[in-house]
Amino acid sequence: MKAAILSVGTEILFGQIVNTNTVYLSRELNTLGIDVMYHYTAGDNSGRLADMLKMAFRDCDMVITTGGLGPTEDDLTKETVCEVMGDTLEMNEKCLADLEAIFSRRGYTLTENNYKQAMMPTKAVVFDNDAGTAPGFALTTEGKTVICMPGPPREMTRMWERRVRPYLLSLSDSVIYYRLLRTFGIGESKLETVLLPLIDAQTDPTLATYAKEGECSLRIASKRHTLEEAKAAVDAMAEKVSEIGGEYIYSYDDEDLHQVVGKKLIERNITVSACESCTGGMFAERLVSVPGISAVFDRGLVTYTERAKIEELSVRRETLEEYTAESREVALEMVRGLKEKTGSRLCISVTGVAGPDAMGEKPAGLIYIAVSFDGREDVRVLNTGKSDRQANRNAAVLHMFDLINKTIG
Amino acid sequence: MKAAILSVGTEILFGQIVNTNTVYLSRELNTLGIDVMYHYTAGDNSGRLADMLKMAFRDCDMVITTGGLGPTEDDLTKETVCEVMGDTLEMNEKCLADLEAIFSRRGYTLTENNYKQAMMPTKAVVFDNDAGTAPGFALTTEGKTVICMPGPPREMTRMWERRVRPYLLSLSDSVIYYRLLRTFGIGESKLETVLLPLIDAQTDPTLATYAKEGECSLRIASKRHTLEEAKAAVDAMAEKVSEIGGEYIYSYDDEDLHQVVGKKLIERNITVSACESCTGGMFAERLVSVPGISAVFDRGLVTYTERAKIEELSVRRETLEEYTAESREVALEMVRGLKEKTGSRLCISVTGVAGPDAMGEKPAGLIYIAVSFDGREDVRVLNTGKSDRQANRNAAVLHMFDLINKTIG
Repeated sequence: MKAAILSVGTEILFGQIVNTNTVYLSRELNTLGIDVMYHYTAGDNSGRLADMLKMAFRDCDMVITTGGLGPTEDDLTKETVCEVMGDTLEMNEKCLADLEAIFSRRGYTLTENNYKQAMMPTKAVVFDNDAGTAPGFALTTEGKTVICMPGPPREMTRMWERRVRPYLLSLSDSVIYYRLLRTFGIGESKLETVLLPLIDAQTDPTLATYAKEGECSLRIASKRHTLEEAKAAVDAMAEKVSEIGGEYIYSYDDEDLHQVVGKKLIERNITVSACESCTGGMFAERLVSVPGISAVFDRGLVTYTERAKIEELSVRRETLEEYTAESREVALEMVRGLKEKTGSRLCISVTGVAGPDAMGEKPAGLIYIAVSFDGREDVRVLNTGKSDRQANRNAAVLHMFDLINKTIG
Repeated sequence: MKAAILSVGTEILFGQIVNTNTVYLSRELNTLGIDVMYHYTAGDNSGRLADMLKMAFRDCDMVITTGGLGPTEDDLTKETVCEVMGDTLEMNEKCLADLEAIFSRRGYTLTENNYKQAMMPTKAVVFDNDAGTAPGFALTTEGKTVICMPGPPREMTRMWERRVRPYLLSLSDSVIYYRLLRTFGIGESKLETVLLPLIDAQTDPTLATYAKEGECSLRIASKRHTLEEAKAAVDAMAEKVSEIGGEYIYSYDDEDLHQVVGKKLIERNITVSACESCTGGMFAERLVSVPGISAVFDRGLVTYTERAKIEELSVRRETLEEYTAESREVALEMVRGLKEKTGSRLCISVTGVAGPDAMGEKPAGLIYIAVSFDGREDVRVLNTGKSDRQANRNAAVLHMFDLINKTIG
């Protein structure tokens, strides 16, 4: 089944609110095996809404609308849907009774325009609203279905969960299952090149790559009659992908790199401390976002000045003078000082040129990471080629987590 | 002028990512006096993209697309736009040279599919991409314009600010000038209530409030024939706003709170160090994002364990036992230890319950911040009432910067 989502509301077109309804409904529809083909947003304008409905129905079986079910004159969704679907509105006695009950509980009386909310298409399947006054409905004509829900997210999500989702489940005959694989150290175009034999050979499961800041994801999705079938197909494909590109994959279940690494450290009870220069605490900040990390994370030091490096980490003044603070040698002395101070089993340090400007001969994006683990030491030198300060710091932190991941194995 | 925004990307239809590009562009277009009529989203499918472009052009003068400019086979935006607008793609030598320069800086060689990103419509006005490999462009045929930008938000927003916005401004016969005022310590509805007399009385300049995580912004915009007129109108309104709500405003030019505070510290040459527990380095990370901060920022300590608090900051074991690590007393001892250790003129500490769970009797969101400046000490106690870990840490960091701002005056 193919669907479109139509959001009605000028406040969305103004950019005043983020359209969270559409994100929510897209995910939900996908898990039901319903392909979302389009998102549309328009204001409360009958002609434009009708155009969008007609356009969507050219290749969709279903349109889900949110918004425009309010009591005021500019709320036109119901009227427009009726016009396009060839139905008319009539007073729905059950809706009217519910509305009167709500108003009487709140101690209000119905005003003229409130009655509008109890008007329903004659052939509608009505969905009660447990969190507001506007009921929703489904209306089917000649195999095409429109489902209308209220715009406020709290009302919409409740109606979806309690009324609309069960209604659609009763209509559907297939399910979608997918997994999102996360990679590090390979670009989107290279990843696609590596996996091309798999991508080209398949119609189901499908493989698709997505670039993310400094990383790349791979989605494997399958649509079958049962969840078991879909899951088996996706898992088999994930294994094939692993054989080809496993070295780049750090998560088979859409986890962030720092989450994966943080969990490993916790599971294996590896104590950890970090000292950072150019990243300024970004590594520690991200590590601390992992729930339960307090069991193994001892401390982080943001040794920004040379003085702080000397005092906190016993970096030697001569090393700073000879090699500058942004050097392999200082990264190593930093991590040794941290090890000496904390005794943490895993210590990591980072120093380098965040940018935007070069420092002397060292270009922006030249970064040194040193790790110490069970007596072994390793240094990774990174050259992003970028002058963007934030991007360089982000790249440095991703590489720190990647280096830990590869070090602890 | 009327515009539509067309987002291209299956990951949006899957609900994997929130379409922040559309929110951003809607706001930006509105400030340019361009009415946004529609939002559309479709996958990388040439037929569907073409249909949407044609539909949009039925009553819009301009369509802005984001996404689908990548190097892979399924990136089809450029091809589709050319088809609809009656142009063809050719190799753009400038784009190719730029692409080769980027790859050579990163130490990679171009693969076959990378060349695709340097192909441009023959009549295109090309927009450089300062943050990625896909250039954007504008293409006008018979009074209708398509503007194509890359999908990753960081690339898109930079291209918009540096290339597309100036391009659109150069086409318009009226000028919009706006200022974004940033506030802290007041909610959106209260801010709107406070400013209601000003908001209701005006058609130009317009005032609009925007809620942001933990903060609220106010945009004052004016559309006039000359920049001078627009600027004068906006500045006069900013003064009126300042008279009514000045105590809440920390920036009159859309600067982040940490930027404002960081700059003040640099200008006044106030040395600063920080020690963090629940925020895990987020304060230091944000401070370090201020260019030039190395002149005054000495160091940050993420003392996550009790041992680290004792060793690094001389917090007394008895204090930890009597009051727990999440207490006013420990926050004060932390900041005193930091002062003793670093001698920085301004020292700040934070400890508290980030959540999601309460710690004993202390609820998630209960946070203590202590500051020491020129011998004066101050403690701020914050109770967000939220269990969201990330939101609580963000609130803590905003309050740390606000406390510094009020302390140094």
